[in-house]
Amino acid sequence: MSSTPPPEIEFWFEFGSNYSYLSAMRIEAAASRHGVVVRWKPFLLGPIFQSFGWSTSPFVLQKEKGAYMWKDMERQCAKYTLPWRRPSVFPRAATWPMKVAAAHADAPWIARYCRIFMTKNFALDEDINSIEQVTGVLTGLGLDAQAVWEQAQSDARRNSLREATAIAQQRGLFGAPTFFVRGEMFWGNDRLDDALAFAAA
Amino acid sequence: MSSTPPPEIEFWFEFGSNYSYLSAMRIEAAASRHGVVVRWKPFLLGPIFQSFGWSTSPFVLQKEKGAYMWKDMERQCAKYTLPWRRPSVFPRAATWPMKVAAAHADAPWIARYCRIFMTKNFALDEDINSIEQVTGVLTGLGLDAQAVWEQAQSDARRNSLREATAIAQQRGLFGAPTFFVRGEMFWGNDRLDDALAFAAA
Repeated sequence: MSSTPPPEIEFWFEFGSNYSYLSAMRIEAAASRHGVVVRWKPFLLGPIFQSFGWSTSPFVLQKEKGAYMWKDMERQCAKYTLPWRRPSVFPRAATWPMKVAAAHADAPWIARYCRIFMTKNFALDEDINSIEQVTGVLTGLGLDAQAVWEQAQSDARRNSLREATAIAQQRGLFGAPTFFVRGEMFWGNDRLDDALAFAAA
Repeated sequence: MSSTPPPEIEFWFEFGSNYSYLSAMRIEAAASRHGVVVRWKPFLLGPIFQSFGWSTSPFVLQKEKGAYMWKDMERQCAKYTLPWRRPSVFPRAATWPMKVAAAHADAPWIARYCRIFMTKNFALDEDINSIEQVTGVLTGLGLDAQAVWEQAQSDARRNSLREATAIAQQRGLFGAPTFFVRGEMFWGNDRLDDALAFAAA
């Protein structure tokens, strides 16, 4: 008897993206209820926005939309009972923790690692873009931070984040979070439940 | 004994906006389940987009987002069991039917009138921007089309659509549909249920 592998969802996100925070915090529990496996896919939004001719997040470039977004985040976090504090810097750079996430995207600890960085940015208002933050979080997870860091810098993995970002661009991603299920794209935390239902169907 | 008036939701929309279609078709039934009264608020998106420096819809200006949106609409219509046909012209101009909607926004037939124009655009792929379409729809609703039309052209009402659009701009609207409940803004069909729950609370 051969057994069918469980359905999968790809979760494309970045630590600087506020709506990615909502999905990062709830996707594992929600996917588990559907019997769906999550593939974490860190990528950088910056180069994608630049390819549209934008110098930064549309929430910064578009004043009205930005003002609304902060209100919406407050309400959405209340709805999902997630902690929330508006970051004093937005969008927050996160290249170092993102590089490690991309290099170790298949690690068994990736979900916990990502939730911690998301929480630091959107609930604790901490600067997250330092090697000290990365090693501190890894150590807190009970990992050999030095070894994890060196693997992320290895020839085989050092370009993982850049490569993931190039793939995101090729596949037509234009924002985060974005989900893929059997090649179908779902954009935004508001589509997470639809994407999971589609995966489980 | 004095009775409290029922809670209200303002529904800002336009006939050319695809996500407004989803809300227009379902808002009365959904609001009714919450005991909430709907105030229909037609306005023009074009001048608002122009104020951002955009010549047309972001779904046209941003190729990737536009491609995704059509796929999303197909899935959303299936989810809400709404008829759907991708319009051959997008965004479709609708100044004439919108002018009449704005001039008669408080009429008892406004919801039915709006649903018909939304259906013509997004399920029947009809050109809707003509006086013939407006008089045809009004007649179909059992109204005196000539009288309704003349009221819409009267000095008191002829600028209703322009005035509504100016108010929308003052209030920081940046897209459609947008809902207001007790001064709080909710943007997008995805927030209709949150807005109604907030209204009923």
